[in-house]
Amino acid sequence: MFKKLVVPAALLAFSAQVQADEGQWQPYQLPQLKAELKKVGITIPAEKLADLSKHPMSAIVSTGGCSASFVSPEGLIVTNHHCAYDAIQRNSSAKKNYITDGFLAKTRAEELPAGASTRVYITDKVENVTKEVTAGLNDKMSGRERRDLIQSRIKKIIADCEQDKAYRCSVPSFHRGLEYYRIRQMMIRDVRLVYAPADMIGNYGGDIDNFEWPRHTGDFSFLRAYVGKDGRPADPSPENVPYKSKDFLVVSAEGLKNGDPILLAGYPGRTSRYKLPSEIRFARDTDYPLRAAEMLADIATIEAATKGNADDEVRYASVVKGINNRLKKTQGLIDGFARKDIAAIKDAQDAEFRNWLIGSSKNSAESKALLAKLDAVIAEDMALSQEELAYAVATNSDLFSSARSLYRLALEKEKPNAQREGGYQERDLAFIKGRLTRLEQSFLTKVDRARLTAGLTRYAKLAVHPAGLDALLPTAEAAAALYDKTQLTDTAKRLAWMEKDKAAFLQSDDAFIQLAVKLHDVGMSLENRRKEVDGNLDFIIPQYMQAVINWKKSQGKPVYPDANSTLRVTFGNVGSYSPRDGVTKGPFTTVEGIVEKHTGKDPFIAPAPLLQAIKEKRYGVFKDNVLGTVPVDFLSSADTTGGNSGSAVMNKRGELVGLNFDSTYESITKDWYFDPAITKAIHVDIRYMLWIMKEVDHADNVLKEMTIKYPK
Amino acid sequence: MFKKLVVPAALLAFSAQVQADEGQWQPYQLPQLKAELKKVGITIPAEKLADLSKHPMSAIVSTGGCSASFVSPEGLIVTNHHCAYDAIQRNSSAKKNYITDGFLAKTRAEELPAGASTRVYITDKVENVTKEVTAGLNDKMSGRERRDLIQSRIKKIIADCEQDKAYRCSVPSFHRGLEYYRIRQMMIRDVRLVYAPADMIGNYGGDIDNFEWPRHTGDFSFLRAYVGKDGRPADPSPENVPYKSKDFLVVSAEGLKNGDPILLAGYPGRTSRYKLPSEIRFARDTDYPLRAAEMLADIATIEAATKGNADDEVRYASVVKGINNRLKKTQGLIDGFARKDIAAIKDAQDAEFRNWLIGSSKNSAESKALLAKLDAVIAEDMALSQEELAYAVATNSDLFSSARSLYRLALEKEKPNAQREGGYQERDLAFIKGRLTRLEQSFLTKVDRARLTAGLTRYAKLAVHPAGLDALLPTAEAAAALYDKTQLTDTAKRLAWMEKDKAAFLQSDDAFIQLAVKLHDVGMSLENRRKEVDGNLDFIIPQYMQAVINWKKSQGKPVYPDANSTLRVTFGNVGSYSPRDGVTKGPFTTVEGIVEKHTGKDPFIAPAPLLQAIKEKRYGVFKDNVLGTVPVDFLSSADTTGGNSGSAVMNKRGELVGLNFDSTYESITKDWYFDPAITKAIHVDIRYMLWIMKEVDHADNVLKEMTIKYPK
Repeated sequence: MFKKLVVPAALLAFSAQVQADEGQWQPYQLPQLKAELKKVGITIPAEKLADLSKHPMSAIVSTGGCSASFVSPEGLIVTNHHCAYDAIQRNSSAKKNYITDGFLAKTRAEELPAGASTRVYITDKVENVTKEVTAGLNDKMSGRERRDLIQSRIKKIIADCEQDKAYRCSVPSFHRGLEYYRIRQMMIRDVRLVYAPADMIGNYGGDIDNFEWPRHTGDFSFLRAYVGKDGRPADPSPENVPYKSKDFLVVSAEGLKNGDPILLAGYPGRTSRYKLPSEIRFARDTDYPLRAAEMLADIATIEAATKGNADDEVRYASVVKGINNRLKKTQGLIDGFARKDIAAIKDAQDAEFRNWLIGSSKNSAESKALLAKLDAVIAEDMALSQEELAYAVATNSDLFSSARSLYRLALEKEKPNAQREGGYQERDLAFIKGRLTRLEQSFLTKVDRARLTAGLTRYAKLAVHPAGLDALLPTAEAAAALYDKTQLTDTAKRLAWMEKDKAAFLQSDDAFIQLAVKLHDVGMSLENRRKEVDGNLDFIIPQYMQAVINWKKSQGKPVYPDANSTLRVTFGNVGSYSPRDGVTKGPFTTVEGIVEKHTGKDPFIAPAPLLQAIKEKRYGVFKDNVLGTVPVDFLSSADTTGGNSGSAVMNKRGELVGLNFDSTYESITKDWYFDPAITKAIHVDIRYMLWIMKEVDHADNVLKEMTIKYPK
Repeated sequence: MFKKLVVPAALLAFSAQVQADEGQWQPYQLPQLKAELKKVGITIPAEKLADLSKHPMSAIVSTGGCSASFVSPEGLIVTNHHCAYDAIQRNSSAKKNYITDGFLAKTRAEELPAGASTRVYITDKVENVTKEVTAGLNDKMSGRERRDLIQSRIKKIIADCEQDKAYRCSVPSFHRGLEYYRIRQMMIRDVRLVYAPADMIGNYGGDIDNFEWPRHTGDFSFLRAYVGKDGRPADPSPENVPYKSKDFLVVSAEGLKNGDPILLAGYPGRTSRYKLPSEIRFARDTDYPLRAAEMLADIATIEAATKGNADDEVRYASVVKGINNRLKKTQGLIDGFARKDIAAIKDAQDAEFRNWLIGSSKNSAESKALLAKLDAVIAEDMALSQEELAYAVATNSDLFSSARSLYRLALEKEKPNAQREGGYQERDLAFIKGRLTRLEQSFLTKVDRARLTAGLTRYAKLAVHPAGLDALLPTAEAAAALYDKTQLTDTAKRLAWMEKDKAAFLQSDDAFIQLAVKLHDVGMSLENRRKEVDGNLDFIIPQYMQAVINWKKSQGKPVYPDANSTLRVTFGNVGSYSPRDGVTKGPFTTVEGIVEKHTGKDPFIAPAPLLQAIKEKRYGVFKDNVLGTVPVDFLSSADTTGGNSGSAVMNKRGELVGLNFDSTYESITKDWYFDPAITKAIHVDIRYMLWIMKEVDHADNVLKEMTIKYPK
């Protein structure tokens, strides 16, 4: 928590052993971590955890963007409320609003279709295919050539694997290309909504409490997987039957106490734990501050342009909300970097690593060359990203984005479908059309004009401009006038451009079409440079990561790969943290805190039956003896990130004791650096879930279906 | 912490025994509290604590507005930095700025005069004089008559007591007139500044951290009492010698741990613990919200009128700061009342008391009459206070206040000096002159005009207006024009009015003098009603308090009187509190938190030597084994209020372990109701004081003079 005096902290972190809490481990790695598992207090054998076909790992599933788990032999799945939100929303109407009121199917027949976007993926096979993917790659190839070769090999592996239509396969890279695994998942496409509490339980606190503690969100819902009568995935049909989940988690209503071990399994999305100090400094000093300033300025522009008109404000509400969410995360990163000098910690680690590498390698000149090459490509990457950002600032207009994408489509359509750039193939047309159509709900000429002209003014002040762009850009005044000479504001006319060819674009007198044509070459130049840089990174980073792994191995420490949306296991303990000297947060919140936060104004409108149950202290077996009441959410040191939403939080025996759903504001930098002093994941407590089901929502049928171990 | 559901909390509080933590006890009461003292863990015998001539109570002194204690046999006194601020300031100049740099006298000769406003009062005798004061009072007298009789008797007792010029005597009332004690204090008038740390230690965090936790203020300073060679108080003189303090506190450098007992002795100012539920509701629902709104509006008016002109802003800076400080306290009270329904708790207590009183009294009709009379006088008091506030809102002008006070002076001067109203006697003239003169530093016509006109506009919207006032008030426009027809803005001319007689006022064409004359009768009517109401309260409240005491006695519980700036003892434990569900504050802050707060901008500019000492972790014996570093401030459950600043915080053996200096924001309502769940006093830890003295300020001579017990 030192702000100015980082050296002692850096040295401390540097000399520390791998923290038990840090690490999003591939299941196969767990047998290497027996000592850590034992130290934390996990009693399930590591070998069992490593076996995806065995309990409890075979109960852990993905819903695509979220994590989930089976909790009955009849395909019952528990995940976060926000992960089931689409399913709840699509079944809601003004008359029967399941978002507001919650939903409970009292019988199988009442279960509602969760919709095409809700699927259940059960990982059943993970194979190392690194050799097949990377054979023959060399440094004679350009970045782009390597990329293309890898992609074509992956496509082939996936196609072979997906011969059986019951499965979806993927070949994600680990350590950015050092390893590739073929992951086979059974994909269940008939998923139904079983039970969801009211939004003001499942999303209590809403955006205001996002990333915050104290938290009182009951972020849970239940779905059910359905399959054909043959037991294999099938399209949604009334004929389908519940999936016989061969494994499921037993629920422990005993919950946890402060300090208890936890085990967490799920599908974390992305982390950047192995970035170089230079990349951290770039993010901290240049990239994030610039992005935050841009987002703030853009919000201010939108607010000024819509102020005083409620309809206009509503039209841009979700745009502003989206920017605000990104801004909060960016600001959290900036605050986190200011609080702790992560770059200095990484400096020390990086220096030790480089010394080791050069000192221990047979050919030190070769090692030095590798490091120099690494630094050069990273520098190129950072510089390019500044140009990309500048381009985006200069073209901050929905109308320009539409025109740009329409012109690109016309160009791509000149090629055979298979050769087109991803996103412009035949299967993408519906998506493009949807995007162009939806614009009418969140677009106003005056606001778009204000954003474009303000962006151009800000662009002029940026330190880095893409080569050639300045000469092509309109002045702010000229940009404002473009809106008088375009018909893209009309949805039908906008969509009509999807059918036109290159010539039509070149001949058009529409001001935004002309602008898109004019800026096309600069945009393509950025895109091509990006492919080259990424291709080079894909070649150099694996070599770097191999060296890092060797270094750690020389210290007897395993290395976990950055998160890549594949199944991982993390473990830690329930615990509190100190966001600042003299203040402690967590580890538990209680139902009394719901009353404390209740204002009757969104997002703090606790449902009356919930308030009544608290008032009457109808806590029953869900009362924690230490707290004297029902716990709501709790903190643990588990290593999580986006994608871990809905992850099963298990006790030392692998019984379900909660669901992961967020992390604290101070933890936002964990995607860069896991700071054991402040990194905490936020979980909803199983006792709150069960208590809501019993006392508030009377979901007795769901309770009955699960195997629940009550405290003695 | 319930916001909406107060009934369970109320019942809980109601059924609870007197909390060990609650109570600002008169020392003589302590032997009635043996069980509580033992439970808390205090080992000094209660009888010893009750004896003001014995250790440790004979080491406890007052400085007038603050509390302090002797810490050497040579008159060395420790108190808060903010209590010694005047003494530090008056010795400072641009050249030698002891506020910024701190001050240390390395020898007695270097000690600096603390100035006439710094005195030391040693309570040596407390006698119950209730009978002498209240004999023959009866309900045939008007409120005013009773007041006058009591005051004349008190004046007589004081005059007798002060025959010996070494003493100052007072006869404060306890339980608002139920009891009167004559308190004799030796008054030492030669006090010198010995040592004060830099302002950025002693007042680190400044107004921003006022009432806040986490806190990192080193709020301590050292003074020395000097007397004549005969050992008796004397006017300041180089011939004087250090006072031989027969008793002093031993210092324990061992400090305290979480949960340890503490004992605190000092001079708390005012509390309102025995107010009726109706008074709490009035304060909560009417009075405080109105006052807060008025303060906010007044600040906004001043800021609008001074905005953009730095000189103007500076001129009103201290006015705005003063209003802001009162606003923060008022807002804290409003927040506290919103957080906990104190009125409901008091309802339950009041109902039980009334039932008991009526049920247990021989003459229940008499008891009912007493309660009815009580309620009637209280209702009158509340109604009158609304009129008083409305009058103040309507006349929110420094120029009007000056004119009003000048006219009153002219009227009072028509009477013999002894018969004049307090504040207008000969001895008060210098004070009046000072106030009229100082106005030129904090006055601007345009701002005063804005405040007066805005106040009149707000007054028009108030629900209650004093009878007859509306007809006399100018409109806002007319009020603005008054400033063109007054010469009171000129200091010399303003002061000249101090010499003029009533006729001159009546004949004046000065617009503000005319307004003061015009509003005089309404103002006097309010003042006379106030005296009558207060006189009635002074008669009825003692009867009420006697009944309350009887009630508590029937339950075997002693009753402490509301604070009245007399010596009191409170005890409790070191501990944390939860300001909201899921968050814990305290009990300790550490020196690392100083670095965390350090921004280099006032009030967070930690001195470089302090930062260096922390960086080097030169903690020595002052390191706490649990915290692993030096504690700065800590929280306890002691029952304190304003006036307790500088109070000795002692361990169970009566050794000095810290100084009281503030309480938390959540505790602000404690002046009305002591809520054991959240009420915490803030103390500076003795280990921080000693560590600063040793490692930062090298005050070795002061350290050497004290008797310090170091940890083994």
